[in-house]
Amino acid sequence: MERVDDIGFGGLKLIQNSKEFCYGVDAVILASFAAQRCKPKPLKIADIGTGTGVIPMLLSHMTKAKEIVGIEVQESSFALAKRNVSLNALEKRLKMVHGDIADEEILKGERETFDLVVSNPPYVKKDSGIINDLDAKMIARHETTAVLDDFIGAAARFLKPAGSFCMVHRPDRLVDICELCRKHKLEPKNMRFVSPNKNKAPNILLLHCVKHGNASLKLLDPLYIYDEIGQYSHEISDIYGKQRN
Amino acid sequence: MERVDDIGFGGLKLIQNSKEFCYGVDAVILASFAAQRCKPKPLKIADIGTGTGVIPMLLSHMTKAKEIVGIEVQESSFALAKRNVSLNALEKRLKMVHGDIADEEILKGERETFDLVVSNPPYVKKDSGIINDLDAKMIARHETTAVLDDFIGAAARFLKPAGSFCMVHRPDRLVDICELCRKHKLEPKNMRFVSPNKNKAPNILLLHCVKHGNASLKLLDPLYIYDEIGQYSHEISDIYGKQRN
Repeated sequence: MERVDDIGFGGLKLIQNSKEFCYGVDAVILASFAAQRCKPKPLKIADIGTGTGVIPMLLSHMTKAKEIVGIEVQESSFALAKRNVSLNALEKRLKMVHGDIADEEILKGERETFDLVVSNPPYVKKDSGIINDLDAKMIARHETTAVLDDFIGAAARFLKPAGSFCMVHRPDRLVDICELCRKHKLEPKNMRFVSPNKNKAPNILLLHCVKHGNASLKLLDPLYIYDEIGQYSHEISDIYGKQRN
Repeated sequence: MERVDDIGFGGLKLIQNSKEFCYGVDAVILASFAAQRCKPKPLKIADIGTGTGVIPMLLSHMTKAKEIVGIEVQESSFALAKRNVSLNALEKRLKMVHGDIADEEILKGERETFDLVVSNPPYVKKDSGIINDLDAKMIARHETTAVLDDFIGAAARFLKPAGSFCMVHRPDRLVDICELCRKHKLEPKNMRFVSPNKNKAPNILLLHCVKHGNASLKLLDPLYIYDEIGQYSHEISDIYGKQRN
């Protein structure tokens, strides 16, 4: 059930459990989006709900951050995240923390010290959707232990003033996301919709917020995953390709 | 300065003043979007901030509504709106009201009686942008007499429970729009982004809200105004063309 993949990006290796939640393109485009959007370059980054730690690993390759902290509540995912750090000899830059991001005691001493917080939170709203009976997969996909309000609230606690929060989610939660970001003083500044291809409605939303930013949203050009003939688009190829050099 | 255009849609004629605000594609795509989205078919419609009344006239052609009320604060635009109703012999279905939509006395006896409220409000935020010194143009383009909160609040007052509110605006106000719609219990249900063409970021936002609706947003396929060779896209041609038959 356990597998080790070479995922590119400078030869990163990732242990995942095939029966549990495995990372997808969402994690890759979020990491790329965050690395591009966060100015100045982030030195200290947190990934809240990190799973097996793929986003911190991608950001270790895509940025020059000195410290990247992943927080994960689910025990088996957290154990894999720690092993992934060792496997890639990233102990000096990456730290994995076991805990619930809704718990205000987590990283209490590091409040308002992060330049960038990223998150690929569970997409399925609490008390909706079909609950998968595999614990780890369920926690990764459904709002079981923490809801969107907790994720956005945690980002606001960890970020420095003017720090950046980058999130990936589904467009059907757009209104909730805007409302909760405003509630926690994370002002949406850049939004990018991602579609499978040019003829499909967007099914992924990338959002960049700035803590205490002023109100003015920019819609970025849409991102298409596949081109007309079903291959990765130029931009997606570039994200994967450039990181392999 | 005054001109009379045959604008299609069953031979509608429209008096506008070239020196003041003239309607554009925004009004046409809003009317078409509202006519498609509002289910069941609307019998009583209000257009808040109607200008010269182009949207009520378009909706008189695109729907079977029995009563369409346009409200306009700016005197010269309101005078043209009334003349446009007469010119098209639409007195039986269209009524123009002179007043400020922020004034809670306006149409007080008709609260919660409308099936559909539409609005193409001023796009430029209060106290921002370059103020044009022509009064009518300034009021049409800038939030001078009423701000977005007033427009959305008026829509909520006029609508029946479960009634539809359809608005066109710029994407940079997306977060404000979501926040204000929730504040006034108009839940965003369908959102459509409009781009000049497939390679440009969206510059127009169409939003359909339902009064007291439950939270679940659907992103519709994007709408492109022009095709690859700079001509109206099929969908835009259809909107203009079909209405001319």
